[in-house]
Formats: sequence, structure tokens, C-alpha cells
Amino acid sequence: MKAEIIAIGSELISGQNLDTNSQWLSRELSVLGISVRFHTTLGDDLEENVAAFRVAIDRADLILVTGGLGPTQDDLTREVLAQVADAPLAENAEALEAISAMFARRHRVMAERNRVQALFPVGSEVLPNRVGTAPGIWMSVGRALVVCLPGVPSEMRTMYEEQVKPRLGRVTDTGRVILHHKINLFGRGESDFESAAMDLTARGRIPEVGITAHESTISFRITAEGATIEEAQLTMEPTLVLIRQRFAELIVGEGTTDVAEALLAQLIRTGATLATAESCTGGLIAHMITGQPGVSPYYPGGVVSYANQAKSELIGVAPSLIEAHGAVSAEVAEAMAVGVRDRFHATIGLSATGVAGPSGGTPEKPVGLVYLGLATPDGRVQSRRLEIGPEQPRAVIQSRSAKNALNWVRVTLLQTPSA
Amino acid sequence: MKAEIIAIGSELISGQNLDTNSQWLSRELSVLGISVRFHTTLGDDLEENVAAFRVAIDRADLILVTGGLGPTQDDLTREVLAQVADAPLAENAEALEAISAMFARRHRVMAERNRVQALFPVGSEVLPNRVGTAPGIWMSVGRALVVCLPGVPSEMRTMYEEQVKPRLGRVTDTGRVILHHKINLFGRGESDFESAAMDLTARGRIPEVGITAHESTISFRITAEGATIEEAQLTMEPTLVLIRQRFAELIVGEGTTDVAEALLAQLIRTGATLATAESCTGGLIAHMITGQPGVSPYYPGGVVSYANQAKSELIGVAPSLIEAHGAVSAEVAEAMAVGVRDRFHATIGLSATGVAGPSGGTPEKPVGLVYLGLATPDGRVQSRRLEIGPEQPRAVIQSRSAKNALNWVRVTLLQTPSA
Repeated sequence: MKAEIIAIGSELISGQNLDTNSQWLSRELSVLGISVRFHTTLGDDLEENVAAFRVAIDRADLILVTGGLGPTQDDLTREVLAQVADAPLAENAEALEAISAMFARRHRVMAERNRVQALFPVGSEVLPNRVGTAPGIWMSVGRALVVCLPGVPSEMRTMYEEQVKPRLGRVTDTGRVILHHKINLFGRGESDFESAAMDLTARGRIPEVGITAHESTISFRITAEGATIEEAQLTMEPTLVLIRQRFAELIVGEGTTDVAEALLAQLIRTGATLATAESCTGGLIAHMITGQPGVSPYYPGGVVSYANQAKSELIGVAPSLIEAHGAVSAEVAEAMAVGVRDRFHATIGLSATGVAGPSGGTPEKPVGLVYLGLATPDGRVQSRRLEIGPEQPRAVIQSRSAKNALNWVRVTLLQTPSA
Repeated sequence: MKAEIIAIGSELISGQNLDTNSQWLSRELSVLGISVRFHTTLGDDLEENVAAFRVAIDRADLILVTGGLGPTQDDLTREVLAQVADAPLAENAEALEAISAMFARRHRVMAERNRVQALFPVGSEVLPNRVGTAPGIWMSVGRALVVCLPGVPSEMRTMYEEQVKPRLGRVTDTGRVILHHKINLFGRGESDFESAAMDLTARGRIPEVGITAHESTISFRITAEGATIEEAQLTMEPTLVLIRQRFAELIVGEGTTDVAEALLAQLIRTGATLATAESCTGGLIAHMITGQPGVSPYYPGGVVSYANQAKSELIGVAPSLIEAHGAVSAEVAEAMAVGVRDRFHATIGLSATGVAGPSGGTPEKPVGLVYLGLATPDGRVQSRRLEIGPEQPRAVIQSRSAKNALNWVRVTLLQTPSA
């Protein structure tokens, strides 16, 4: 069974509002084993809607429509469906009654315009709206099933959960379940991972494995199907094991887990504590760490030492060192890591100093040049040089530096025994 | 001219990821007077893509495609376009050169798979990618123009702005322009702003005014149309003036300007310097400030004093004060603000201490309770109590606290004469 989701509203195609209904419905349908193949977004235009509905009916078996069911003149979904199904609109007494009752409950008078919300194509079924005025529509058109829902997300969700989901179960009757899982990796480029996973991402392989990149985090997306959730999980499992073994320490987490969460797990396991000294990342490393609930015992804090004076006075970087090598240097990164570790009585000190841009770059030290420093309990002090590229925007330079820094600590802790 | 935007990626139709590219491109095209009529989202399936491209070419004059240009096997856009245009794929030497150069700059070896990114349908033009490896494609198919862009948002935006937007200006030639403008406010709830703007948001009013809320920032969205940009601006202007007058100091900025950017403008104007001491916000305040290019002279830095010991040792909060009132208290917030101002030799000290949750709350000091502290050059030290609510997620509590803190400094500086 192929599904299409159609979202209607001129505010969506103009870009003023972001459509989140289609994503939500896609996730819901995949749990039912229904494969969503198309999303379409349309403005409030009768002809264009009629044509797009016809395209959908031609290529999909199930069409979920959101929006265009309100009382105003630009709410056209009822009329569009009537034209496409070649069925006249007729007033539904029960629906009209329900709409009036909704107004009465809210101590308001029903406007004459709201009567149009009780119009339905002949041959369709009414889906009552318990939390708003716009009823939904359930209708077969040719070999396709069309279900129209309100555009207001809370109303749409309630109607879907209470009325559409239970009925879709009966309609599809496939029992098929599609499961998605994500394994997130960090530390190499997308094509490197792809080369190392050609066997997994081959077309037609079961389960299906795809690769996506998001801010330097690379994710394997595994999709498996089965008659039951258990069966889908069994289909998926050998591939998960394979990926976990093959990519081992490059894996930062699964599902929504990112580098910061994976690092916290290592801090907890080893009992290490971390302090941070940031220049170019300006607090982003601290923010990523403290976004994790429960991090307090492992993160006494950090310093954002933007000014050179702050580097010296707060974390003890010698002014002569800054003068000799510049604030953006391996030497200063290392001194920052040591200094912040000691000042915060932590076992690990992590630092970042670089040129975040867009200005401030020189031929020798261009925008995107970043040094990370790491001081570990064994007394070792190291630095790393990143060249993120002068063409990258400030936010990308900060974000990649921060992720690299956190990941460096994570990988280092992997070699540390548990506390 | 009718436009369609096609977003490609199985992670989008499955609902795993949310497509934000289509919204962004819609806004951009509307500024050029190009009416976006359709959004379509497709998975990584060759046949379905070919069919959907044909539908698009049939109903739209301009088709912008995002995604499917990567080096992996499920990146099909090149192949789809070749089939639809009935043109074979051929390797483009210049594009291959550019991709190799990008790898060289990053000191990495180009994987063999990346060669496919240099394949283009014969008759198409290459759009070089300055910030990533996937070049774009510009091609006429029948009477439609098809422009393919990378799916990574930062790469897509750079390519659109630098290469597509200037060329589209030459293609459209319709003259009609739709302008959108946003005025961003902070400090009251959405319904308060709505009540104070009933006359502006009335249906049918020209220009049209809408209200949206995003993480406590409320935006008025003003939309005006005209034969030229100037005409649209003239239509919009009286409403902008009205809003600016009526909401005065509640306005934090216009367009994409948020609280942090508005604060930087005030720091520059007054010559004040700011230092921050953060507990519950964990570096977010510093991160928001340092996200602004050019902030260095006004922001010597800050401390993330998560541990009480760090509050005492690094910024001089007396341990007895913490013992008497607790770390989450007006007294400690004030001492943090004074301490950090002095340690960083700044003119203003700002602090936040609170319970970000989800655990750590008590009946007396519940999750969501936050104290802000502010020390100003006139010697005044103040605190503010925020009750964000124990039901709010950690990220919301951190974000609202940080925005409130920055806005407090901004409003305070509004009363300070220029340097």
C-alpha cells in the first residue's frame, strides 16, 4: 500500500509557515506498515488542488489530506473532493448539529459561514471533530481512499489517533510493520562511510540501509519490515550488529543520541570529570554538555575566555605564551586545557581556540583554523589542528569544532577502564 | 510564473527528518515575485522520482530540487534528471577538478564514489559548490527550468544565494513582487500581543499581518504585494511604522534579528562590555552572544560555574552565601553578576542560576525556577525571578532563561547614552 500526504494552505507554499503535519503523519503511518511515498503541499487554489488530487489518486492507494476544511472562502478541500469524486456537496444534519454544539459549549454564536463546514460530498463519511469545528472526511475515490483532516496540528492529531488510526488498521489489514532505526557516526566524511558500507547500502538489500549527513554527523538509517514489530526487529538485528562491530568507536550513538550524550555516558562509566576552556566556540561546548540532564557531577564548569586577559587571569595561560605563538596556536590550546582542568579541579581539561570568522583571518591563520587542547589524568597534554575551511559560515565552524572536541574526549575515554 | 519545489530523501517521507529547505526556498522565491504553487517530497526511488518530475514539468515553469546529489547509491537526482530530459550522463572535467580540490583543501583523499558527483546530463550547466562536494545542476527541460541543489541546508542556501538567485532575476521578468517582513518582539505572551494588534491582523487588511510564536519570541509577519519592490515596500511602510511605534521597546529586531543581535547593537552603541556567569543555562548565554560576528571587543568572556566550588573560586561567590540561601537564589545570582563583572574587567555582569530539570527540583525550588542577576556600571546590582514552569523541558527552560537574560541587558542599555 502506497500513501501520499497532501498539506493545503497558501501560508505553507509561500514559506511563511512550516508544515509539520506531514512529518507527523508519515511517522504514524509507518508504524502501521503503510509506506508513505509522496508529500505534496498546495496553496488555496481550486484548479491546482483538483489536478494534484487526481495525480495522487493515480499513484497512491491512501491519501491523507490536511487543511482547507475551515469556514473561510479559501478553504476549498470539500469542493475539491466533490469535483474529483464527481459527487455533489450536501449538508449533513448531524455534522451541523455537532458544529453548533461546539459553539454553544464555548458560549459563542455560530457564524453563518460555519454552515459550509457541514457540507460533504455525497457518498463520503463524516469524521466528527471533538476539539474544533472542522469535521473530517473519509471517502473512496476510484481505487484510492481519501481521508481529509483539519490543518490545526492538535485537531489533526486527535482526529487521526481517535478515528483514522483505528479504521486504517481495518482497511490495510496487512499487519505489516515498518521499523526505522538510526546509528550515528562521527569522525569521517559521508563518502568514507559509504565506501566502507557498500555491501550494506546495496539496492534491494534487506533490511534497507541509507546514509544521511547532518552537521558532520553521519547516520545509517536502517528500515526493516515485518508482519509484527518482533519480526521487523529480527530482520533488522543482524545488520545492526554488523554496523556496530564494523564501525565500533566511530559510533557516537543510536536513535536521537548525539556526540554530547555519548560523551556523558563515557564520563559516567569512567567517573572522569571535565572542564572546558573555550575561545572560538564561545560557550557552545559547555552548552552541548549541559544540555544533557544529569551531567552536573561530571561537569564542574568552564570558562569562555574570549579576551586574552581572561585566558591569563582566569585559567593561567602565560601572557608570554600568547605573545610568542598567538592566541590561536597549539601551545595556547594546550595551556588552556591544563589551566582549566586545574582551576575547576577536574580530571580532564578540554579547550578550543581558533578563528570563527567571518573576519579576523590572516594568510597564516585563516578563518576556520582551530586548535583543540586536551589534558588527561595520565599527565598527557595534546593538541589537534582542525582546518574547517574559510568558506564555512561562523555557525558551522563553531559547531564542527565543538563536536570534534567532544568526540575527542569521548574516544579518549573509550580506552579508560570503568570506575 | 509558477514554481514547484521538490525535496528528495527517504528520511523526509518516512518522517525521520523534517524538510525545512522547501520553506526557505519558498520565502526566497516570493521575494523575486515568483509564486510557489507546489511542494513535493519524494523518497529515493528512481521510478517515482521520474514520474513526479514529469508531473512538475507539466504544471510548473520553474522547478527547484533539493537533495539526491550526494555520492551514495541512493542519490538519484542526476539519473532522474537525465531520464526526464532524455539526455545521457557525462563526466564534467571542471566539476571533477573542483570536487578533488575540495578534498585536497581538507587534506583528505577523494573516494572513488565521489566521481559520480561530476556526472551531469548533457545539455545541463554545472553550479559549483563552494562549501561542499555536491555541485548543483541548471537545466531546461521542455518549457520548464529545473535547478537541482544539494540537500544539506547550509550548502543549499549558499548555492541559492550566490548562483541561483542572481540568475533567476533574469529569468522571471514578471514584475510582481511579494515582500515579507518580520518584526520580532519579546517579553509578553502571544495572546497579549494579539489583543494589542486586533486592528492590524484583521482579515482583508492590506498589507496582511500575521502573528507567530517561536521559543518565546513573537513575530509580526507583514506581507505586501506590488508591481515593483518599491511599490510593495510603500504598501508595507505605514504598517511597519505603526508597529514600531506601538510596541517600541518590546521589539528586539526585524527580519532574522533576534535578542542576541539586538543586544550586540546596544553594546556597540554604548561601548559597554559584558561578562556572563552561568549555572542553569550552562553556556547558552555565552553561545548566543558569541554567535554574533564582531562581538569580541564587547564580550571578554564568561564562566560556566556549574559546581558551587567554581562559583566561589572563579568568581568569588562567598561559600557562606551559597550555604545560607542555596545556589539557586537572588543573593547568589547577584553575587555571581558582580563577581564575573570584576573578574573579566567588564562594565556589566550578567548571571543565571536555576533548576533546569528534569530532576533536582524541590517544593521550595521547583524545576523551572531561575534567578537572573545584573550588575551595571552605576553600581546597581539587581536580580529577577523567573518561573518558567516545571512542565517545561530542559531545553526550553535554558532557552527562555537565556533570552530573558540577554533581553534584560538590552532593555537596560536602551536607557544608556551613546558612547
